[in-house]
Amino acid sequence: MNDTIIDSSLRTVEWKNNKVVMVDQTKLPTELVFVEYDDFNQVANAIKTLVVRGAPAIGVSGAFGLALAVLQSHATIKDELLSDLENARKILFATRPTAINLGWGLEKIMNVAKSGDTVEQIKELVISEAKKMAEEDIEINKAMGKNGSVLFDDNDTIMTHCNAGALATVAYGTALGVIRATRESGKNVKVIATETRPIQQGSRLTVFELKHDGFDVSLIPDTAVGYSMANGLVNKVVVGADRIVKTGHVFNKIGTYQVATMAKQHGIPFYVAAPLSTIDLETKAEDVIIEMRKGSEVTGIGDKKTAPDDTNVINPAFDMTPPELVSGIITEKGVAKAPYGESIPKLFQAN
Amino acid sequence: MNDTIIDSSLRTVEWKNNKVVMVDQTKLPTELVFVEYDDFNQVANAIKTLVVRGAPAIGVSGAFGLALAVLQSHATIKDELLSDLENARKILFATRPTAINLGWGLEKIMNVAKSGDTVEQIKELVISEAKKMAEEDIEINKAMGKNGSVLFDDNDTIMTHCNAGALATVAYGTALGVIRATRESGKNVKVIATETRPIQQGSRLTVFELKHDGFDVSLIPDTAVGYSMANGLVNKVVVGADRIVKTGHVFNKIGTYQVATMAKQHGIPFYVAAPLSTIDLETKAEDVIIEMRKGSEVTGIGDKKTAPDDTNVINPAFDMTPPELVSGIITEKGVAKAPYGESIPKLFQAN
Repeated sequence: MNDTIIDSSLRTVEWKNNKVVMVDQTKLPTELVFVEYDDFNQVANAIKTLVVRGAPAIGVSGAFGLALAVLQSHATIKDELLSDLENARKILFATRPTAINLGWGLEKIMNVAKSGDTVEQIKELVISEAKKMAEEDIEINKAMGKNGSVLFDDNDTIMTHCNAGALATVAYGTALGVIRATRESGKNVKVIATETRPIQQGSRLTVFELKHDGFDVSLIPDTAVGYSMANGLVNKVVVGADRIVKTGHVFNKIGTYQVATMAKQHGIPFYVAAPLSTIDLETKAEDVIIEMRKGSEVTGIGDKKTAPDDTNVINPAFDMTPPELVSGIITEKGVAKAPYGESIPKLFQAN
Repeated sequence: MNDTIIDSSLRTVEWKNNKVVMVDQTKLPTELVFVEYDDFNQVANAIKTLVVRGAPAIGVSGAFGLALAVLQSHATIKDELLSDLENARKILFATRPTAINLGWGLEKIMNVAKSGDTVEQIKELVISEAKKMAEEDIEINKAMGKNGSVLFDDNDTIMTHCNAGALATVAYGTALGVIRATRESGKNVKVIATETRPIQQGSRLTVFELKHDGFDVSLIPDTAVGYSMANGLVNKVVVGADRIVKTGHVFNKIGTYQVATMAKQHGIPFYVAAPLSTIDLETKAEDVIIEMRKGSEVTGIGDKKTAPDDTNVINPAFDMTPPELVSGIITEKGVAKAPYGESIPKLFQAN
C-alpha cells in the first residue's frame, strides 16, 4: 500500500481556505490522494465519478458545492445570487438523484440562502451552514454508533456490504460507526466485508479503513455471502442506506437485498444504520428512481477487460430491501423496529 | 475482441496427434488461444490454473492426462505401467478434489488400464477410451439439452451463473446446452449471465460463447441477482453442477446458493443441468470438501489490485444448494424432481 497513511482524524470532505478538499476514493486502496476544488462543477463531477460517495458525504459535498457557488458568483443583488445558486443546485442534484441526502443538503443550503438579505450576508450564511453540516454529521454518527452498539455482542462477526464507513461520511461512519462504537464499548468484534461489485467499495474502502483501525476483517467475493452464512461465519449484518422510506423499505448499494434475504434465511439479524437525513417521509417505495450506471463498470475493472466488446449490461446502482427483512434501523435518535410505519415517524417526533 | 473467431465446431478439449489440445480459458474473452500438452503434469497444472474448467471438461481432461501418462511411461511390464499411471492419477486428482467428474474420469481410465494384458494393449485401450469419453460427452449434452428444453417457454429470459457451456464441456454445454436446445426447438429465449466473481467465468466465458452463437445475452454483476428477479427480468434459472449427491444437494460455483435462494423467494424455477457422471451416489452432502482458493483472486483482477496488501480473504470455490431450492435436475436420462432420494436413483436404473 506504498507508505500512504490514513490519519485517524481523516476527513473525507472538508472546507479549507475557501476550497473543498476531498479524499479521491477512486484511488484507494493503493494511494491516498486529496483533491482540492474551487468550482462547484468540479464537485458535481466528483460526486458523479465517485471521487466522493456515501449518502452523508454526498449531502455535505453538495452543501460545500453551493458554498463554492456563492464564492464563484458575480451577482451584486440577492435575486441574481439566488438564481446562480439555483443553477448550481440543479447541476449538483442531477449527479445522484437516488441519494436523498444530496437533495436534503442542497435544500438546507438553499433555504439558508433565501433567509439572507444582502449578497455578502448570504455568502457568509451559506458557508457557515455548510461547515456546520459537516460537524453535525460527525456528531450524528457518534450518537448512531452508541445507539447501535447495544445490538451487538462480544465476539460477534459482523458482515457489512459496500462502504458505510468514515469514507462514506465526513468521518466515523454509519454502519462502520456502529462497529467502531461496539468495539469502543468494550466488545470484541470481527468483520466480514463483501467485495461489492461493480466498483469494489467493500474491498477498496471498507477493508482499507477497518484494517487501518486495527479490526480483524476478512474479504469475501459477493458470491460468498450465502456460503459464509450457511457455514456459521456470520452473527449479524449491518449496512448503511442511501434512502429509507417511511414504510421501512431500504434503498442501498446493489446487492444489499440479497444479503438481507440470505440473512433472513439463516436467522441472522440484519440492521441498517443511517441518519434521519437519509429517511424520506414523502416518497413511496415504488416511486424511488434507481439509477442505472454505465456498463463498463461490469465489463472490466480499470483497464482490465473481462467481457467481450459490446456486451449488454444491466448495472443498477441500488436495490430495494423490503421491511420484512430488516431487523432494525439504527439512527442518531434511536433504533426503529417493525412496524416501521409507526416507529420511523416517532424518531422524528423525538427530534 | 480482436479478430479471434470461435468456430461453432470448437472443441474445448481434444486429443490430436498424441497431444492434448485445449482452449486456454484464462485468455478469454480477449484472445482465443489453443494450448498443446504432451505431459500429464501440464494437464494437471492446466486444471489447477483454470486453463480448463467445468466438471465435464475436467473429467475428460483427466482422462486425456492419463492417456499422456501412458505415452510418457518407459514401463516394459504391466505392473510398472499401472504404477506410473497411479502416480499420474494422484497428481491429476489432487488438482480439483471437489469435482466429481475428475475422479470419475480418472477411475474409468484406471479400470480400462487394469483390464489390459500387455503394455502396448493398455496404451491403446487407455487412449481409445479417453477419446470415446470425449465423444460421449457431446452426445450426453445433446440428450440433456433435449430433455431440458421442454421446461422452458417461448420468450423466457433465463438466468445462468458461471459457465456451464460449451467451454465447460467438450462441446455444446450442460446448462447452456439446455438453452441452445430450447432455441433449437423453436422457442425464442434471452439470457441474463451473472459476472461470477472471483474469476468472471460468466462475463468472460458465458457472455463470450452466447454472443458468438447470436443469443440476446445481458451481463449483470453478482450483486444484481436480487434486483433482476425483483424487477421481473427473469423467468427461469438454469445452472450446471460440479457435484450432486443423492439427496439432491447441489455443489456448484460459489454464488449458486444465493441465486437459488433469490429464485425461490420470487417463485422462479431453478434448474440444474448435469450429466449422471456429476452425480455422486456415495458421498453425503456434509462430507463433500469445498476447496478454498487463493485470496489474490478476490483482492484484484489480473494485475489490478482492488484491496489493501495482506487482506484476509475467504474464497471458497463452491457452495451447496439444498434440494428444497431445486426445481429439477436435468440429465441425459431425464429430469429428476423432488423427492430426489427417489428420483435420482431411478435415473441410474433407466441407464
